[in-house]
Amino acid sequence: MDQELARRWLATALGEARGGRGEGGVPIGAALYGADGVLLGRGRNRRVQDGDPSAHAETAAFRDAGRQRSYRGTTMVTTLSPCWYCSGLVRQFGISRVVVGEDRTFRGGQEWLAAHGVEVVVLDDPECVELMRTFVAERPDLWNEDIGHD
Amino acid sequence: MDQELARRWLATALGEARGGRGEGGVPIGAALYGADGVLLGRGRNRRVQDGDPSAHAETAAFRDAGRQRSYRGTTMVTTLSPCWYCSGLVRQFGISRVVVGEDRTFRGGQEWLAAHGVEVVVLDDPECVELMRTFVAERPDLWNEDIGHD
Repeated sequence: MDQELARRWLATALGEARGGRGEGGVPIGAALYGADGVLLGRGRNRRVQDGDPSAHAETAAFRDAGRQRSYRGTTMVTTLSPCWYCSGLVRQFGISRVVVGEDRTFRGGQEWLAAHGVEVVVLDDPECVELMRTFVAERPDLWNEDIGHD
Repeated sequence: MDQELARRWLATALGEARGGRGEGGVPIGAALYGADGVLLGRGRNRRVQDGDPSAHAETAAFRDAGRQRSYRGTTMVTTLSPCWYCSGLVRQFGISRVVVGEDRTFRGGQEWLAAHGVEVVVLDDPECVELMRTFVAERPDLWNEDIGHD
């Protein structure tokens, strides 16, 4: 896809991630865009804010978009490479593309998604990397909890 | 695991599934049990009830359990074989075991989970099968929407 468009969409997810950081939450954000480029939903990790472990950024954006008849042609934009939970979401619902802010600090199922026909675009964005590096260094307990690591 | 215990736990998930049917929802229920056998959370698919496509039975039960430091030794009990979304949840959070009410009408990632070390117990329960058979026959549109099939 067009890299400029991908970066513009990433800015939406980054706004969510920064908002989550400001709330003392896990600083990961996401946005779901329609096949026509319209923003369908956006969200951030809400483990801390709502005490809800099921609200990863991607699932929050998916939820925010409400019921959809089809996800064909949609794009999930996320500041961090999707974990297995969120990768499973993408695969099950047939989301066509994933734009990843960064995959340096964590990598879940992005190769698995690519092997199953999902277009994966990794932007390697410095702000996304910095957000996660700082968070993981400051709150390793919270980060491990969020990805189910004992 | 002990089959009698598995069937007792399935009864909790089945109660959720029946409740969902009564609400006009997707009749799938789930429950998360701790390593010590205590019920941590229970839930049902809430797509219709809450207009929330992210609320599959398993993710609803996971959410209901709240924040947990570890899922080691826990069991996710579900009336229907988990889709990729819910299978991803199980893998990411290290849930140790999945009890499946039935896998005749639908099968998602249960073999993938087993290949990754999750204990999978399939009970082939007639009431679970009947709930789904009737639902899929009566509401194919809703069922296809729930699993992201165009």
